[in-house]
Amino acid sequence: MKRIAESTVRRLSIYLGFLEEIGAEGVLTTSSDDLARLGGTTSAQVRKDLSFFGSFGKRGLGYSVPELSSHLREILGLARKWHICIVGAGNIGCALARYAGFAERGFMITGIYDSDPDRIGGRVGRVLVRDSASLEADIAAGEHDIVVLTVPPENAQDIVDRIVGAGIKAILSFAATQLAVPADVELRTVNMAMELEALTFALTNRDR
Amino acid sequence: MKRIAESTVRRLSIYLGFLEEIGAEGVLTTSSDDLARLGGTTSAQVRKDLSFFGSFGKRGLGYSVPELSSHLREILGLARKWHICIVGAGNIGCALARYAGFAERGFMITGIYDSDPDRIGGRVGRVLVRDSASLEADIAAGEHDIVVLTVPPENAQDIVDRIVGAGIKAILSFAATQLAVPADVELRTVNMAMELEALTFALTNRDR
Repeated sequence: MKRIAESTVRRLSIYLGFLEEIGAEGVLTTSSDDLARLGGTTSAQVRKDLSFFGSFGKRGLGYSVPELSSHLREILGLARKWHICIVGAGNIGCALARYAGFAERGFMITGIYDSDPDRIGGRVGRVLVRDSASLEADIAAGEHDIVVLTVPPENAQDIVDRIVGAGIKAILSFAATQLAVPADVELRTVNMAMELEALTFALTNRDR
Repeated sequence: MKRIAESTVRRLSIYLGFLEEIGAEGVLTTSSDDLARLGGTTSAQVRKDLSFFGSFGKRGLGYSVPELSSHLREILGLARKWHICIVGAGNIGCALARYAGFAERGFMITGIYDSDPDRIGGRVGRVLVRDSASLEADIAAGEHDIVVLTVPPENAQDIVDRIVGAGIKAILSFAATQLAVPADVELRTVNMAMELEALTFALTNRDR
């Protein structure tokens, strides 16, 4: 398969979010113009984004909302359930464990891990807090597909090495540090300070 | 000033994080090779990234850690304090209000807003929960530079219209919806479901 740009995947997510929203309202067809407006792009870009994956829509008739939703779910890998565990039951980890938006898109939180004995065995929302010591065994047993990492930066690489060793292939890190993973492991990083710095850079340099 | 790519700004943040880390350990000089390794790039890219902003470092001697840190802080707009308010005292909003990493980079959380009377007047960590009704007046009075938006998607555009009307020029949104802002307002969006979808897309399409 052709290498697809990250920005394309991001737009596919946006299109899908919009399609599911209007689908829930009973709308049956939509246009590349509508999708473009929502995705902050052009209708030509929408058609190009979708063309990577086949032929969708009919000229003059637009796209069937249920059909295109279903295709996009399949393209994005959402035709199946994904089991996600959170490592680190701090503020961010607990907030994510309680975040209802994941289940809507087919993501199931299958556990939250911590090393603090006072937390282990408790619950965050409906999610059980498990002992970090069992992380590798649980991953090796196939309990989790994706790890969301919300540990302090100084512990992050150690955890990554352990979960990668146990067979995990996808990590979403909220730890404010650079992480090294093998080439066959997908890593994405959300760094709050970095997001704010992109804003302060823009605010500071816009008037020069 | 020349238009700087988002990916360059992101790397500058990474370089700065690394420089502050080794600076705290007393390291005085570093090389473009070290910066490249940390930033997941090449030393030629490091030199190119920095060259947009002037001439740094000496051939064969590398970069002075304190000097380059200070330059990068200035470039990223971090030579001043930024006042940040959070709108929405839900799980994510409260987690961010308690996040200690912001202060380290010069970001001060100046308030967290909510419309729930039971929350207003309380505190999240050390941050006072204020009444959303006073948001516009507080922004107009210059109390906040940046808004971090952690409200439900259905309320997000309404809040954005209100804060933009009151003069805010930078928004970091965690609301899972597309937002419209005028051209002179900087908007960044962190969408957790979208991050996970980038991972499931990669996991699903890698073996095709």
